[in-house]
Amino acid sequence: MSEQKNPATAANAQTANVKKQHQSHKKSSKSKLQVSLKTPKGTKDWADKDMVIREAIFSTLSSIFKRHGGVTIDTPVFELREILAGKYGEDSKLIYNLEDQGGELTSLRYDLTVPFARFVAMNNIEKIKRYHIAKVYRRDQPAMTKGRMREFYQCDFDIAGNYDPMVPDSECLSILVEGLTKLGIHDFKIKLNHRKILDGIFQIAGVKDEDVRKISSAVDKLDKSPWEVVRKEITVEKNQTEETADKIGEYVKLNGTLEEVYDILSKDESISSNEKAKQGLEEIAILISYVKAFGIERFISFDLSLARGLDYYTGLIYEAVTSASAPPKDAAELKEKAKKNVKKGETADEEDVSAYVGVGSIVAGGRYDNLVNMFSEASGKKSAQIPCVGVSFGVERIFSLVKQRQELAANIRSTSTQVFIMAFGGGKDWNGYLPERMQIAKKLWNAGIETEYLYKAKANPRKQFDAAEKSGCPLAVILGKEEYLQGKLRVKRLGPEFAHDDGEVIPIDDVVKVVSEKLSQVHEDGVDEIQKLLQGLR
Amino acid sequence: MSEQKNPATAANAQTANVKKQHQSHKKSSKSKLQVSLKTPKGTKDWADKDMVIREAIFSTLSSIFKRHGGVTIDTPVFELREILAGKYGEDSKLIYNLEDQGGELTSLRYDLTVPFARFVAMNNIEKIKRYHIAKVYRRDQPAMTKGRMREFYQCDFDIAGNYDPMVPDSECLSILVEGLTKLGIHDFKIKLNHRKILDGIFQIAGVKDEDVRKISSAVDKLDKSPWEVVRKEITVEKNQTEETADKIGEYVKLNGTLEEVYDILSKDESISSNEKAKQGLEEIAILISYVKAFGIERFISFDLSLARGLDYYTGLIYEAVTSASAPPKDAAELKEKAKKNVKKGETADEEDVSAYVGVGSIVAGGRYDNLVNMFSEASGKKSAQIPCVGVSFGVERIFSLVKQRQELAANIRSTSTQVFIMAFGGGKDWNGYLPERMQIAKKLWNAGIETEYLYKAKANPRKQFDAAEKSGCPLAVILGKEEYLQGKLRVKRLGPEFAHDDGEVIPIDDVVKVVSEKLSQVHEDGVDEIQKLLQGLR
Repeated sequence: MSEQKNPATAANAQTANVKKQHQSHKKSSKSKLQVSLKTPKGTKDWADKDMVIREAIFSTLSSIFKRHGGVTIDTPVFELREILAGKYGEDSKLIYNLEDQGGELTSLRYDLTVPFARFVAMNNIEKIKRYHIAKVYRRDQPAMTKGRMREFYQCDFDIAGNYDPMVPDSECLSILVEGLTKLGIHDFKIKLNHRKILDGIFQIAGVKDEDVRKISSAVDKLDKSPWEVVRKEITVEKNQTEETADKIGEYVKLNGTLEEVYDILSKDESISSNEKAKQGLEEIAILISYVKAFGIERFISFDLSLARGLDYYTGLIYEAVTSASAPPKDAAELKEKAKKNVKKGETADEEDVSAYVGVGSIVAGGRYDNLVNMFSEASGKKSAQIPCVGVSFGVERIFSLVKQRQELAANIRSTSTQVFIMAFGGGKDWNGYLPERMQIAKKLWNAGIETEYLYKAKANPRKQFDAAEKSGCPLAVILGKEEYLQGKLRVKRLGPEFAHDDGEVIPIDDVVKVVSEKLSQVHEDGVDEIQKLLQGLR
Repeated sequence: MSEQKNPATAANAQTANVKKQHQSHKKSSKSKLQVSLKTPKGTKDWADKDMVIREAIFSTLSSIFKRHGGVTIDTPVFELREILAGKYGEDSKLIYNLEDQGGELTSLRYDLTVPFARFVAMNNIEKIKRYHIAKVYRRDQPAMTKGRMREFYQCDFDIAGNYDPMVPDSECLSILVEGLTKLGIHDFKIKLNHRKILDGIFQIAGVKDEDVRKISSAVDKLDKSPWEVVRKEITVEKNQTEETADKIGEYVKLNGTLEEVYDILSKDESISSNEKAKQGLEEIAILISYVKAFGIERFISFDLSLARGLDYYTGLIYEAVTSASAPPKDAAELKEKAKKNVKKGETADEEDVSAYVGVGSIVAGGRYDNLVNMFSEASGKKSAQIPCVGVSFGVERIFSLVKQRQELAANIRSTSTQVFIMAFGGGKDWNGYLPERMQIAKKLWNAGIETEYLYKAKANPRKQFDAAEKSGCPLAVILGKEEYLQGKLRVKRLGPEFAHDDGEVIPIDDVVKVVSEKLSQVHEDGVDEIQKLLQGLR
């Protein structure tokens, strides 16, 4: 229970003396420091309903991960710096280092994938399905509205081990679909491509092997920039011929259902005579039958322009985007405004520019068959090939989508309190039954029932009712001055519709039984607001 | 599901070609780096059963915190360095700093209390009951066996707000008792003291105000060192007179039930004429009636030698110790060995020395009325006194105690898998029903049922049974080659006691209904092993 306004509290005769002393601390705590009362740039506190929604997203996803046989692990928030080195290409500059205070050099983890590969290699694990929900760190330019933070959560599910091709890959795609639909997000598509097909296309177009990754990075920008801009990057900045660029352009324009694009590519002689592209295409053929078995083919768009930034992918790559990811109506205007600011010599406001690209991809993943092996070999272990495939849910972005269902969020409670214990009596001499309220509370706590009472020896009835209503809890247990002396309590439903219901008088000893019964009635009547919110139902 | 041995997999004709390509990656991933395959000093990975036990501890504690009206918050893992400055006395040297890579200076959080106070001050919160389960960081000498890590979890519950004295304090004590007993730890006692009484005693003994905190630190060592050693520190190192030391010695020897020690102190004229001590004692009088209401007075030992290290406490202080915290039998020997190593010019092995002091306190807490105020004042906000009291569970230490119940841990599964889908057939031409197994799995997943199958197109029955048994799941759904063609599935219990049970043949369309029914039977029969483990039952 958190409150930002605190009504003045009336003093109680019995405890007034001590309370005065209590408050007299005020004078003795002068501090001369001047500190900024804020969290570091790109980080935030989570509290109240936001926290409840986020926790519900985590619990929804982890129950899906468990449903697929996943086990969870927990790795340290920082790793030896050498473990992270050379894994993220250009983005390595975004890694947070810890200060060298003597001892090992360490850095905050950038993602959960590299620590997972380190874990698998270090423990000689031959197969594992693991999920991990934890924070990662990137010294990026924050864009809060876009959900881009320096500290943010990832929810990852990965399958490591030697298996028949596309079996774990198709399950990751199924998990992606199950996760988003269970969270009430139905208007998404999965852009899917295959690194081997893409690399094959680059070979066909005449890109040299050593240039493949940087051309791939250029193509990766097609979700934000038109082909003409990317083409210029390929020819001018990356020194490829016009012919190479145009050949790439022909292919990366292709997209459609898995079967449509498969049909086009399988009839393409350049593709079938390129070893890499052919391998990739054979895997797509197998994948088609598996996604049909899962009934998820309608979500998938085979899109040859998808390249994905990270170096470590070796096979299937995919990312889910929603229609909410499309530029908002006023994006052009915002972009224009941001440009103007730059012209005037100011720094471009990232908050403005970011609005243009929307929330971006909300889930992403792919196959990375060499990462575990890199660790095994680099540490001098007997090398075993442990291929991996995974899927990573971007919680901050999903959170923004879920939270847009505002009208439902209004009903979410941040406490779980079920019972508020009150004492009504009167007369100056009456002690307010505080130890008695505590005794009843203890009985209910011991029975696992969420219970509160006002932290006041002698509390007036109005304040107790206000506090109970504020907490949103459905039941009150009332110690009436006279009734209690006769060994009785009153149990009453709370809420406006029960304003004229006096409740039921019961023996004190029955309190756990009666309260439990009434609560199960309450919860039969009610609907879980959080589940309703997550599923996007009205 | 994680396995460290992987049986060689027989190739399947349909997919052999692609698989070969899959494995050919092996050659292309040579890396020349030499890296240490380990986690940083004082950190570790959590996995398998340890992870399951730890998660169960978290869920037990958070359900208790919720039961008391708690809401959870999440703060960043690093804070502005100035927020942490000047809060931890001598221990400030243990704070991990992030490297100055441009921008703000930040440090990893040392505990959850200071970030909580920053949160309360920053958001002008007047009252909140919050819990927070998260990692904290201390560059201490690690002692794994003692449960002392550089990265470890704290589970904190704190109540902020102006309330009648001792009401929230006694609830924190009740939460301490509920938490430990719910986790099966019954042989503990709560050492309790009051900073005002302690400070009063120091005044009575003639300690100057500016020396109080350092004398308090000396007294804090009484749990590890005999009085003679502490007395020497007070007189020799901390420059107090013999008389002062002896006066302190008289008081700090006192311990007993709350009422016993209260009686002694309330008859002591020095105490009743010292303003601070008198205030503290009045609060103890109130506390006595509240802990009686909660029925937890038998756990409490009023112990005037308890001082607690941290500067920020202002009232009640307490810590729970277990009999398991006492030195093990071979402690003296280990200590001797450690000393010898030092004599030989080697570094003392902390692992050895630490065994001497056992696991130490497993829960600790107290009242800190000025911390929020310090932040408000230092940031120039209108200052409001927000008194706080809290309790912090040391999970790593509790984990060690719970895990000692080895015989129970043996039964814990790390996956939640309930159903393993298999296909039996035969003949070279049979395709292994993999897409069909996927279809059935998808039905069960959509019904929320944890389901796995072997990631193999054509799997032999033995391997499928082995995998199912290894997962420990109770049910198999079997696609028999002939039965499936007739629209039928076989549902069968797994486990040695069902070896001769052929199961039941059902229509495919009934699979969700039948599996759900059978699983509810299974779980009625069974007992939750984790709950049994936590509660220490056999």
